[in-house]
Amino acid sequence: MTSIRPKCATMLAGLIFLCIAYAQFLHADEGMWTFDNFPSKTVGEKYGFTPTQAWLDHVRLSSLRIAQGCSASFISPQGLVMTNHHCVVECLEQLSTPQHKFEEEGFLAKTSAEERKCPDFELDQLIEIRDVTKEVQGAIAGKAGDEANKALQAKRAELQQSCGSDKTVRCDLVSLYHGGVYDLYRYKRYNDVRLVFAPEFSVAQFGGDPDNFNFPRYDFDIGVVRAYEGDKPAVTKDYLHWSANGTKNGDLVFTSGNPGGTFRELTMAQLIFERDILYPNFIPLMSERRGVLEAFIARGAQQAHEADDDLFFLENGFKVFFGRQEALLDPAFVAAKEQEEQKLRAAVAADPKLAAYVSAWDEIARVQKVRSEMFVRNLMLGGRAFQTGLLGDAVELVRAAEERTKPNRDRLPEYTDQALVNVEQELLAPEPTYKDLEELTLALQFTQIRRNLGTDDPFVKKMLGKESPEQLAHRLVSGTHLEDPKVRGELYKGGQSVIDGSTDPMIRFVASINGDLLAVRKEYEAKVDAPTRAATEKIAKARFAVYGTSVDPDATFTLRLSYGTVKGFEDAEGKFIEPYTHIAGLYERATGAPPYDLPESWLKAKSSLNLSLPMNLCTTNDVTGGNSGSPLIDKGGNVVGLVFDGNIFSLGGDYGYDGAKNRTIEVDSRALLEGLRKVYHADRIVDEIEGAR
Amino acid sequence: MTSIRPKCATMLAGLIFLCIAYAQFLHADEGMWTFDNFPSKTVGEKYGFTPTQAWLDHVRLSSLRIAQGCSASFISPQGLVMTNHHCVVECLEQLSTPQHKFEEEGFLAKTSAEERKCPDFELDQLIEIRDVTKEVQGAIAGKAGDEANKALQAKRAELQQSCGSDKTVRCDLVSLYHGGVYDLYRYKRYNDVRLVFAPEFSVAQFGGDPDNFNFPRYDFDIGVVRAYEGDKPAVTKDYLHWSANGTKNGDLVFTSGNPGGTFRELTMAQLIFERDILYPNFIPLMSERRGVLEAFIARGAQQAHEADDDLFFLENGFKVFFGRQEALLDPAFVAAKEQEEQKLRAAVAADPKLAAYVSAWDEIARVQKVRSEMFVRNLMLGGRAFQTGLLGDAVELVRAAEERTKPNRDRLPEYTDQALVNVEQELLAPEPTYKDLEELTLALQFTQIRRNLGTDDPFVKKMLGKESPEQLAHRLVSGTHLEDPKVRGELYKGGQSVIDGSTDPMIRFVASINGDLLAVRKEYEAKVDAPTRAATEKIAKARFAVYGTSVDPDATFTLRLSYGTVKGFEDAEGKFIEPYTHIAGLYERATGAPPYDLPESWLKAKSSLNLSLPMNLCTTNDVTGGNSGSPLIDKGGNVVGLVFDGNIFSLGGDYGYDGAKNRTIEVDSRALLEGLRKVYHADRIVDEIEGAR
Repeated sequence: MTSIRPKCATMLAGLIFLCIAYAQFLHADEGMWTFDNFPSKTVGEKYGFTPTQAWLDHVRLSSLRIAQGCSASFISPQGLVMTNHHCVVECLEQLSTPQHKFEEEGFLAKTSAEERKCPDFELDQLIEIRDVTKEVQGAIAGKAGDEANKALQAKRAELQQSCGSDKTVRCDLVSLYHGGVYDLYRYKRYNDVRLVFAPEFSVAQFGGDPDNFNFPRYDFDIGVVRAYEGDKPAVTKDYLHWSANGTKNGDLVFTSGNPGGTFRELTMAQLIFERDILYPNFIPLMSERRGVLEAFIARGAQQAHEADDDLFFLENGFKVFFGRQEALLDPAFVAAKEQEEQKLRAAVAADPKLAAYVSAWDEIARVQKVRSEMFVRNLMLGGRAFQTGLLGDAVELVRAAEERTKPNRDRLPEYTDQALVNVEQELLAPEPTYKDLEELTLALQFTQIRRNLGTDDPFVKKMLGKESPEQLAHRLVSGTHLEDPKVRGELYKGGQSVIDGSTDPMIRFVASINGDLLAVRKEYEAKVDAPTRAATEKIAKARFAVYGTSVDPDATFTLRLSYGTVKGFEDAEGKFIEPYTHIAGLYERATGAPPYDLPESWLKAKSSLNLSLPMNLCTTNDVTGGNSGSPLIDKGGNVVGLVFDGNIFSLGGDYGYDGAKNRTIEVDSRALLEGLRKVYHADRIVDEIEGAR
Repeated sequence: MTSIRPKCATMLAGLIFLCIAYAQFLHADEGMWTFDNFPSKTVGEKYGFTPTQAWLDHVRLSSLRIAQGCSASFISPQGLVMTNHHCVVECLEQLSTPQHKFEEEGFLAKTSAEERKCPDFELDQLIEIRDVTKEVQGAIAGKAGDEANKALQAKRAELQQSCGSDKTVRCDLVSLYHGGVYDLYRYKRYNDVRLVFAPEFSVAQFGGDPDNFNFPRYDFDIGVVRAYEGDKPAVTKDYLHWSANGTKNGDLVFTSGNPGGTFRELTMAQLIFERDILYPNFIPLMSERRGVLEAFIARGAQQAHEADDDLFFLENGFKVFFGRQEALLDPAFVAAKEQEEQKLRAAVAADPKLAAYVSAWDEIARVQKVRSEMFVRNLMLGGRAFQTGLLGDAVELVRAAEERTKPNRDRLPEYTDQALVNVEQELLAPEPTYKDLEELTLALQFTQIRRNLGTDDPFVKKMLGKESPEQLAHRLVSGTHLEDPKVRGELYKGGQSVIDGSTDPMIRFVASINGDLLAVRKEYEAKVDAPTRAATEKIAKARFAVYGTSVDPDATFTLRLSYGTVKGFEDAEGKFIEPYTHIAGLYERATGAPPYDLPESWLKAKSSLNLSLPMNLCTTNDVTGGNSGSPLIDKGGNVVGLVFDGNIFSLGGDYGYDGAKNRTIEVDSRALLEGLRKVYHADRIVDEIEGAR
């Protein structure tokens, strides 16, 4: 599946966002295009349909970002929103009770009154894009290291704050082309989002981990929510109409969503770092955690309920990382990347006007050595480490208190006034906490830190004292009260003095090590991030000079439009895979045993369904993690599907798109309505969708 | 720690033994020398001591192999044997009761009568080495693929059987230098081995996984057993005397033991296979299993008791594999290997007499492509897969029955008449079985198979049917009676007809898939092993021609002698590490929390101990996994230590020894006697050792 999952995947996300770059060569339908630079002309020439500005504006305003890591779209004028099941699963969990485990059993609001607010959910609608490149580049010009970071941080805070303090507005500074372009993205922000519908987990994620990223597949991975304003359904002028007929093989289709991160224009030195340092170190840590969760789940139904969701996202993350590593272990793939780089470097070397950019690649290579030396410590302690579970809450509370004592411009980016809207929402949202699971995974985290830094490391000695990782985890988890949102709320609202006075062991622990953690992060940002940004900015400018600006920037979890067609592909054994699966296939594949078990609702409805309708399909659109929940639309702007996955080859696509092999996978719009109407009898929703057609 | 552990590490062992090769360049004290080709002259020139033939014969006959994966030595004329705690841990488990968990609490036979037979333990004393190269090479000359494998198999069975059917004799065909030399090793075999002493786990493995392979360290990793003959202590003319004084910095020392496998002369194509295919695929599987065991252990004391030992060996295996991978990810290391290969290839190309060998490297490279394609399937189903736990017992039983219907020469090598001695001993030995743990790890195995081969793979479909991996594991484990050694004995002795008639679900399951598993193995052996053997034999001959025969062959879990000196080293941060630690340091390092907790015995004895005595030491001897339990001896042939580990750099040593960095770690002989006498009051044993001095 192609979501980013901040809660469960913060370590991943931290890595994903370390490096962004941009695409040099366009192959086939490659491109995750910003809406202000969409190649309408190219599409028109190739496919005979040229999107107009009005078409683009309409699609943009109908599209949504889920701040927690997914994409979505309006599908009715009353704020109805379509996304994936796996994008609403956290809300399902938060609303669940011991009697109703909605993430497993599904949810249907039969009336408007039954629509239930998701405690921690934000929808962002992209209203405006403003180029602020000169302003930002001016602010950091001539600065290096920590000084450059501080200047960028201050400028970011200032620009974002320029949108005002209205909580329904959000402004993000977006760095495209590695600092080649800076844009200020202005969003309308919906924080009152209510759950309307979700199917059962078993059909939403039919085939589970084995089928994930493996087409042909058969998932009903939909979640429906509704945006509210002033306690009423939002009035949404722009929304996507539902297609009456769906697609056929070869049709032109678009996806509009928020790809999280691609790495297509990393330099060779960076690719080799990822291949030889990042993956060999990080993948085993993921695998170990996976094993821990698997064994926990094996204990029984309650444990499965507690950890299924974490495992689900971890398995997805593992597959993504493993697939990317495979791409970098393919000598032909790496040779092609090397050739691309040599070609650009030769062009830069040949043009005296570009002399200032010649050294950029060597600068990046030099930084990789520093990065390698700091990698393990930063992975364990810096960046986005310590951000999950109760320990993550404690870190959030301790840092939020400290940062709020500073002027806005001097704060860590995630604690500016604007960002605090999300911090507060997250901290105050009730969140199911399972202390046995918390203790287990925390002990693992401490164990991995000791293993990777060594027993004799001063931080490890400070962290553990005379305790074992298990003893420390037990003391912190059994003693803390942070699982109570009221306690979190008091600590958050009380600020520094209340944090200082807290005797909660988790808070005290974090307070004692927070300085160490931030020091690791700061050093990494100064010695790795800042010089990387400076050098990649040069490469970006060199690339503009050599190839012009008609290229799409690497993904940045901001809105992008991709075009493609409905098209099959050859699998690894050379067998041709047709682009559609059908509902009949879902029943044929079901064994009755997880993850190939169907819920009662689908078993009962079988005889009433049109089994020959398409279930899932694959298209050549260029997407990645974060695109989960993106609408698939036809040239009329109508919904013809719902993006939820990619094929196995799409994982290497994060380093370079291959139109012959990379495919996006969608739930077909016809299966969606068939299921909603005949399996779930969700007539109210289907009527609303069809009424809006 | 440097043992091979067949029970817990069969998957590893399968991989470890896939490839053997031999060393080309000797650096510093490099070399795991066979006793018939020891470079006495070189040692004499360098260190002023030239081992005589009598010295070599005495050391060889005093040295032992533990067939289950370790080394040992006689230390008294009454068959007293010294090895590591971790080499007797399986025996400790087998002898444990719910009341006495010997592997945790330790064991001391206060009288001869209290010495207890280890149910599955074999000591091999190397009596004779006979060169059978011509015979073996003649048998396979002109044959390829499966035909060559069969010819080798038949010749091996014939040669081994030539030792007769006396169970106290064991003959192994040993392929050295990748088929450049074949030797028949004749052993005196001791199968009545009794437990004499073992310390508590916590001091034997003080520092656990974090300290493993990290010197300075402080372990009391000793296990003492005794060889019996005719129900009486064996009379052992050759044994090692105990040193009165131990060593000092710079002293010449020797290790005599059985290194399991090194890979120093793999071709570049093979190294790249290991770096890019083997480790990236295999290490995550190990990590996942590690996580499963960690979570299981976290459940409580009983679960910890059940799985601690498996985790301990798995952690060790992980560190070994991770360290080897690190070596291959070091560009300088790989460049040096590449240079070595180019040098040899150039010399071969320049000599017309060696024309027949020129193509060998390309042949190996070609085989790597086939190997890559078959790798995952072979890892999951072929080779040494399906060999652990109750499922492993079922495989053993099904195959032993089938193979015994064939003439000796046509059987799989592990079921020849001679090999059946071990099969029978293993199957009939009582072995603690924990069905909850079995089910958990079996479900993981089935899950990994499905994940790696795919849901639609015909074997996976056959294996799972309509069941999930968890359901299948539960049905097999809950229904089987193979945990009962009597049941195993009946099935073993009954042979094919009893197996055919068995309704045990584990037996039926294995019987249904055994043909598929063996087909994978056979195809791999024919398409990978046979052509690899043929090509590496050419390279071996080319190397003899260019460099002569004064090189040591890669390790083959047969007896080797290594020389070196007591010497410190620089750690990764450039800090010099002294070669000795002292007993005082053990107490300083103890926190009271596992794995840094000391047993009551050591806490109580502290005031009586000479804390300034050396505890562990490091030396430049060249060893690897399998050497665990090897004696460290001085030039007088006296025991000055007990090998149990290597430093972190020694892991890369499996691909190439670096005298500046690679170190072997031993328990100092002085600490051993101090602990035995003053902590354990094992006066009977110390008196025997000292009496024999």
